[in-house]
Amino acid sequence: METSTIYNPSDTICAISTPPGTGAIAIIRLSGSEAIAIADKIWQGKPLSSAKSHTAHLGYIGKADADTPLDQALATVFRAPASFTGDDVVEFAIHGSRWLQRQLISLLIKSGARMALPGEFTQRAFAAGKMDLAEAEAVADMIAASSEAAHRLAISQMRGDFSKHIEKLRSELVDLASLLELELDFSEEDVEFASRERLHTLAAELHAELSRLAKSFDAGAAIKDGIPVAIIGPTNAGKSSLLNALLGDERAIVSDIHGTTRDIVEDTIELPPYLIRFKDTAGLRKTSDTIENIGIERSRQAARTAGLVIFVIDPTNAQPETIHAELSGINSERIIFAINKSDIALLDCNIEDMLSKTYPSAPIVHISAKYRKEIDTLKQSIKDICTKITDNAGDADMIVTNARHAHALSAAATSAKAVEEGLNTQLPPDLIAQDLRETIHHLASVTGQITTSEILQTIFSRFCVGK
Amino acid sequence: METSTIYNPSDTICAISTPPGTGAIAIIRLSGSEAIAIADKIWQGKPLSSAKSHTAHLGYIGKADADTPLDQALATVFRAPASFTGDDVVEFAIHGSRWLQRQLISLLIKSGARMALPGEFTQRAFAAGKMDLAEAEAVADMIAASSEAAHRLAISQMRGDFSKHIEKLRSELVDLASLLELELDFSEEDVEFASRERLHTLAAELHAELSRLAKSFDAGAAIKDGIPVAIIGPTNAGKSSLLNALLGDERAIVSDIHGTTRDIVEDTIELPPYLIRFKDTAGLRKTSDTIENIGIERSRQAARTAGLVIFVIDPTNAQPETIHAELSGINSERIIFAINKSDIALLDCNIEDMLSKTYPSAPIVHISAKYRKEIDTLKQSIKDICTKITDNAGDADMIVTNARHAHALSAAATSAKAVEEGLNTQLPPDLIAQDLRETIHHLASVTGQITTSEILQTIFSRFCVGK
Repeated sequence: METSTIYNPSDTICAISTPPGTGAIAIIRLSGSEAIAIADKIWQGKPLSSAKSHTAHLGYIGKADADTPLDQALATVFRAPASFTGDDVVEFAIHGSRWLQRQLISLLIKSGARMALPGEFTQRAFAAGKMDLAEAEAVADMIAASSEAAHRLAISQMRGDFSKHIEKLRSELVDLASLLELELDFSEEDVEFASRERLHTLAAELHAELSRLAKSFDAGAAIKDGIPVAIIGPTNAGKSSLLNALLGDERAIVSDIHGTTRDIVEDTIELPPYLIRFKDTAGLRKTSDTIENIGIERSRQAARTAGLVIFVIDPTNAQPETIHAELSGINSERIIFAINKSDIALLDCNIEDMLSKTYPSAPIVHISAKYRKEIDTLKQSIKDICTKITDNAGDADMIVTNARHAHALSAAATSAKAVEEGLNTQLPPDLIAQDLRETIHHLASVTGQITTSEILQTIFSRFCVGK
Repeated sequence: METSTIYNPSDTICAISTPPGTGAIAIIRLSGSEAIAIADKIWQGKPLSSAKSHTAHLGYIGKADADTPLDQALATVFRAPASFTGDDVVEFAIHGSRWLQRQLISLLIKSGARMALPGEFTQRAFAAGKMDLAEAEAVADMIAASSEAAHRLAISQMRGDFSKHIEKLRSELVDLASLLELELDFSEEDVEFASRERLHTLAAELHAELSRLAKSFDAGAAIKDGIPVAIIGPTNAGKSSLLNALLGDERAIVSDIHGTTRDIVEDTIELPPYLIRFKDTAGLRKTSDTIENIGIERSRQAARTAGLVIFVIDPTNAQPETIHAELSGINSERIIFAINKSDIALLDCNIEDMLSKTYPSAPIVHISAKYRKEIDTLKQSIKDICTKITDNAGDADMIVTNARHAHALSAAATSAKAVEEGLNTQLPPDLIAQDLRETIHHLASVTGQITTSEILQTIFSRFCVGK
């Protein structure tokens, strides 16, 4: 980033903190050692320099020499260190016109502040020790969260539950390391201070927990971004109608012409607490249409990568061999059969029997996408499977949602495995200690006890401006 | 409005007050006698019931029985009557995810608040006597203002400058009325208490000022919504290229094919302090294309209603008779000639002479739209004419921008004229007094001293929710 060269952590920074656009109120935030002095330069009212922390004041903002003020505003003062960033902070609540927001920002810049970089307020909170890195990252997740489950993970992480868990693992590793190093100090004397058995148990436990955490990222990412649900099945089985019924509106173009849907149509609904990301897909059939064939290939891809698959069956035209072919390789615990057109036909009993036997854990739901019958039953089946997916990932509050954390935890798990194996194969303690230190290092990078300015730059540049 | 039937001014109301969407911070506002009690139901922290007015408190929001809170939040308490609405107000600043905003609103509604109607917070401020009607209406203008000039009018009106002026006129009218009614009381005695001459002067002055105010609405509306500038001229003179040059991007589709532009393309730029609303129009030429002909008719219409007209001339193909025909009926003080293609050709001296003589007040600017030459000179000419337009409307701070006010002031001017004429034609004082009372009534409706609930409903329903 170009901006990194001019970044100075002691500047007083400002930004619009409310969503972009027009509204009743907009908040402009100012933070830094000069925040109150700069605010007073543009403030017409009781001087903010005499205001107590956490108090709100009504006055006018504008150029000192202007006869007409810019706006009536409410200024709230937060004094260091009792503010979000740890610096002095002034928040101006003004009328939410875009024009006015731009004017106030430009007035503050003329008075000595500079525009905040994305995430710079939170970065300062991290630098001031107000939160660790995982907690700071959760602030961005919090703002982006669009379902109850995603939100619950973010608030839990923001409150430090996740960090405490990581810290607990880290301190156990440090204990293990000190036992080992004690042994190392006295290695010439061939003394074993650390009980090998205890070391074994601890290393195995840590490796298991780190692996679980690293693996929980699949579920965590699905919760955060929405659980991908692929709607597949033969052409004209009613997949697009089903998507519309699930979404409750006319999202996908519906027609009786085979091959109407070529692109994967994506849309989301909230099935609290989950966000579901539906992928309507091209019908599976043999075709010479090149574009349609690309669509069909994408459908197969979508099914393979989806969290769960709804296979739509047209009872008037059900072909068991097609079903088996398309579902091969997909975990049957993540399949739902939607037998469509329940208003005009029933599925052959033999086929239904076959489905129950071959895919014993896959629910079979009889629906009518066209007349929107039993759609709620289908939604409940979707929710049940989502719950299974997230329960499998372990303790709901200890699921990894951040790719950086997953990467670090995965590296930590690998080192922890090396520790475990080293103990099993009776490697010299100094080599085991090295793997242990590596494990601790990876864990520490999650909460930011060990970090580089480059990593910080990358993390905070993904934030929105004003946070 | 359906909602008017359930409207209860003593309800505690809530709304999202920041612009819609995702941002670092969102503000949810709660106002009413139960505001603090409802806030405390969902508040985990120091009870807000014990908080002083104008203080901000950090805590958590969420259901009382939930183990995980919804968010960390800042609650600012304003106690009646020292709040925007005059009622108790609590403002929650939360993380600005859409999902979270919806959740908090639904939590507040479950706890006893109801959604605020558009403008309901400001309506309560009006009802509490915090501002008069013209001042309240300026709040909405303030939020919508998109140029310095529009903003200056709104803030001046919001601060009561406009209301004070109206009030001054009203009190002069009341003086006049009392003089006249004194005369009326003693009419049988044929005594003239009021100096006829003074009455004449006062009535004439009031009528003149009310007429000026009513007429200033044309300029006021142009300032508020943007001054409409029509770009007209023969086909292929480079009108769309000029619009793009003025806007600084590729807004209109440019091609060498005659008749590329059919719809009127609209876009705005800020030429501080003005907002300029450009209308690119279909080229003026004889054509058999029906759709294009509709476009040409619209161009003529745009020129007639525009604040100013830029007539683009192609020097390689300038036809004086076309220019005259298209500009007939347009005030020459509102015309600018843009002689385009200065990079390849010069306008015939005779034609340029003719333009200077026929349209003496219209500036002639030689430009190249394609190479963006002298575009700033053209912009300066536009600004100069805008300044003339607004200066003609009188005192810059006393321009009417609100259609309702213009309507009332126009009615007041008509009654004032009747008063003036009544005095001239020596009408009996009781008839003159009636016209005077009518004038006062219309003026009083501007600031809301006389109003109906229906008018209030109409005014405030145009506000955004949350204000």
